[in-house]
Amino acid sequence: MPDIRTVLIANRGEIALRIVRACKLLGLRTVGVYSEADSGLAHLRLVDHAICIGPAAATNSYLDGERILRAAALTTTDAIHPGYGFLSENADFAEAVERAGLILIGPASSVMRLMGDKISARRAMKANGVPCLPGSDAALPLDPDEIRTICDAIGYPLIVKAAGGGGGRGMRVVMKADELLDAVESARKEAALAFGNPDVYVERFLREPRHVEIQILADAHGNAVWLGARDCSVQRRHQKLIEEAPPPGIPEHRISDLGLACANAAARIGYTGAGTFEFLYEDGNFNFIEMNTRLQVEHPVTEMTSGVDIVREQIMIATGASLSFTQADVRTNGHALECRINAEDPETFMPAPGTIKKWRAPGGPGVRVDTHIHDGYTIPPHYDSLIAKLIVHGSDRNDAIRRMSTALEELQIDGVPTTASRHKRLLDDPDFRAGVFTVHTLDRRRTREQP
Amino acid sequence: MPDIRTVLIANRGEIALRIVRACKLLGLRTVGVYSEADSGLAHLRLVDHAICIGPAAATNSYLDGERILRAAALTTTDAIHPGYGFLSENADFAEAVERAGLILIGPASSVMRLMGDKISARRAMKANGVPCLPGSDAALPLDPDEIRTICDAIGYPLIVKAAGGGGGRGMRVVMKADELLDAVESARKEAALAFGNPDVYVERFLREPRHVEIQILADAHGNAVWLGARDCSVQRRHQKLIEEAPPPGIPEHRISDLGLACANAAARIGYTGAGTFEFLYEDGNFNFIEMNTRLQVEHPVTEMTSGVDIVREQIMIATGASLSFTQADVRTNGHALECRINAEDPETFMPAPGTIKKWRAPGGPGVRVDTHIHDGYTIPPHYDSLIAKLIVHGSDRNDAIRRMSTALEELQIDGVPTTASRHKRLLDDPDFRAGVFTVHTLDRRRTREQP
Repeated sequence: MPDIRTVLIANRGEIALRIVRACKLLGLRTVGVYSEADSGLAHLRLVDHAICIGPAAATNSYLDGERILRAAALTTTDAIHPGYGFLSENADFAEAVERAGLILIGPASSVMRLMGDKISARRAMKANGVPCLPGSDAALPLDPDEIRTICDAIGYPLIVKAAGGGGGRGMRVVMKADELLDAVESARKEAALAFGNPDVYVERFLREPRHVEIQILADAHGNAVWLGARDCSVQRRHQKLIEEAPPPGIPEHRISDLGLACANAAARIGYTGAGTFEFLYEDGNFNFIEMNTRLQVEHPVTEMTSGVDIVREQIMIATGASLSFTQADVRTNGHALECRINAEDPETFMPAPGTIKKWRAPGGPGVRVDTHIHDGYTIPPHYDSLIAKLIVHGSDRNDAIRRMSTALEELQIDGVPTTASRHKRLLDDPDFRAGVFTVHTLDRRRTREQP
Repeated sequence: MPDIRTVLIANRGEIALRIVRACKLLGLRTVGVYSEADSGLAHLRLVDHAICIGPAAATNSYLDGERILRAAALTTTDAIHPGYGFLSENADFAEAVERAGLILIGPASSVMRLMGDKISARRAMKANGVPCLPGSDAALPLDPDEIRTICDAIGYPLIVKAAGGGGGRGMRVVMKADELLDAVESARKEAALAFGNPDVYVERFLREPRHVEIQILADAHGNAVWLGARDCSVQRRHQKLIEEAPPPGIPEHRISDLGLACANAAARIGYTGAGTFEFLYEDGNFNFIEMNTRLQVEHPVTEMTSGVDIVREQIMIATGASLSFTQADVRTNGHALECRINAEDPETFMPAPGTIKKWRAPGGPGVRVDTHIHDGYTIPPHYDSLIAKLIVHGSDRNDAIRRMSTALEELQIDGVPTTASRHKRLLDDPDFRAGVFTVHTLDRRRTREQP
């Protein structure tokens, strides 16, 4: 690998450790950066250099691109792996990395920008054969009559979304035409505030969709493959709780048609690295919602079913290497599940940082644990509450569910409450067993429980 | 499964936990037995019943078949899993289990007895097309002239072995004809003392063999499959340190011919359950030495390459089920390595029991940890010193070696010395890298180092 000798990991927690593991496989030097709250992180023991980049608040450390670039300059870093969250989808940061003459392990900043704007992303996908919902192909105009004409043609219910957005902000569901203009107006205000961009667009609203996503890898030479689909419908307020591969009950040929479309689209837009195309699935149709231009928390379920080390491939692609395999080489096998173990109250999902008094990880065949925690580890209150990912692989979905149940039974975490008990209950849930969870199932139940 | 509802695990440590995991996958009740030194064992937290069966000394607990049968009677146990070591290859115990109307998860006692006697095992294998070394097909006679005639025909060097034996006891290497009679005489004495059976036989002696073994599964309906081969040549004084699958540098078709022969032989002798045919490999030839009629410590490397849960299959077979797959369904993939982490001085290999002060397990893709230890666990001095098995899977041997190196770098064990540092050095050893270790490589080096 001529281009990359040293990788700086611009992240923390389990994903920083995950990236160090991949770098070591490739014989690369590693630089770890950490905030003042994070000097005890597990991956810092394994890196060649560890640099404190600022105070605990992420805005002054993990979200501060300048500090990270300064750390890179101090350590003869060639490439930066942003992980997920933090700066991983920040096109300005990606551009700053490029301008500094460094390699961002991810797509080019221009492609990140294209896909970061939900309107241009939607347009690019539509133009490249990826199925999209009926919707507006541009930002809504200012004129109320024009807005009404566009939206009446699409039909109701519809959803107003922010072009710069994500995570539910700047979104409004419009059930009837007479709610439209107020919804557009308030969505614009929220979007301007949240993303500095008041542009909104509309799409047909789906009532009970599942969340299905396609993992792709694309190199700089026009080769792209898809590695399988994941179902992440078990969500609470847009937070995924359980992810699995493949999505239960969807015919294989439907998934492979979609996968192929995504891989082709990725190649056509000049995408490089690992990426995820997210879809809402309802009534047998896939509908593109957005692309995540980075590694995802749930990538291990695809690694377990495809046998591909996605993080290693990301880095190889960043060195300019061609993909070492073709679509025909990708063979998926069995079923994988991931439970995100968060340090949270399992009922309210309120973060509950604290010190781990006892940590007993499950093990044995088909069980993978990705975590940075250990006995005596103190979870700082400043970041997200993910403390471990439990991933299992089984010969089929039932086998995987049984393995996960056993793994959760083995798991012991004392000192902080975690979502593990919630996961146990979910695995026994008849709707989960039947594979019919939609993204709204849990939130609707919660609303019913607390009228 | 009509026959088995409750399984008693007649073992301790990591393998007891491994067996509990498999039982839980199958929805079976579990009974754990433990000695007075072992009340803190990890698997006891997971079983439905835990019973103390006696004092710390294994002869009064794990090796005492009567106590185990009594525990079984107290707990409406249907089946007993003996694990490895202890009573797992004791045909008398197997017969007592049968007489008590219980199921031993393993072969019938008669088959265990056939293969436990190395002379009858050798004869059975030869008769069923498994390659054996030139040797005597019966116990050596008493008459010195007859002994000489037999041995001269086989040729020198040769090795005298105990029929009842194993582990190096009752073995004598004979380089020249004039050493023969003394060697036979002293081997007989040692064998009588060690195994209560003075019978010895001879085989051609191999100077630099590798240890290669075939994992098979056979059901009670005449179906048998082989799941791959393992190389266990990295040994010190007959103790395996690193095991791998597949054996490096041996052509696939040679392995599959051998595997097929083993599966056929297993079916013909009426073998049921999981078993291992052990071979010495030299000059391109496989030479049967013995069969292990039980689960082996190193079974996970085969699980990682074949995707088959061997312990679950063992139990399924014991219920009378037919194998759920055929040889054509068995697809091996990639390369797996196992390091046995022992609480021992890494130079002298002297056991070093004590309390674990810190335990940090590696994780991430391709890494499996089978262990019963945790922070604060005290290793009792009464049993063997295996505290964890680190198993990795990679796309090829180099990839697996790199993953194991990273995993060993991540591993932290404070409180007792372990063999982990020795494993790290072995992974960098040019001879190991080249895949040319024989069973004598380490011992010979040691002799050279300490003249």
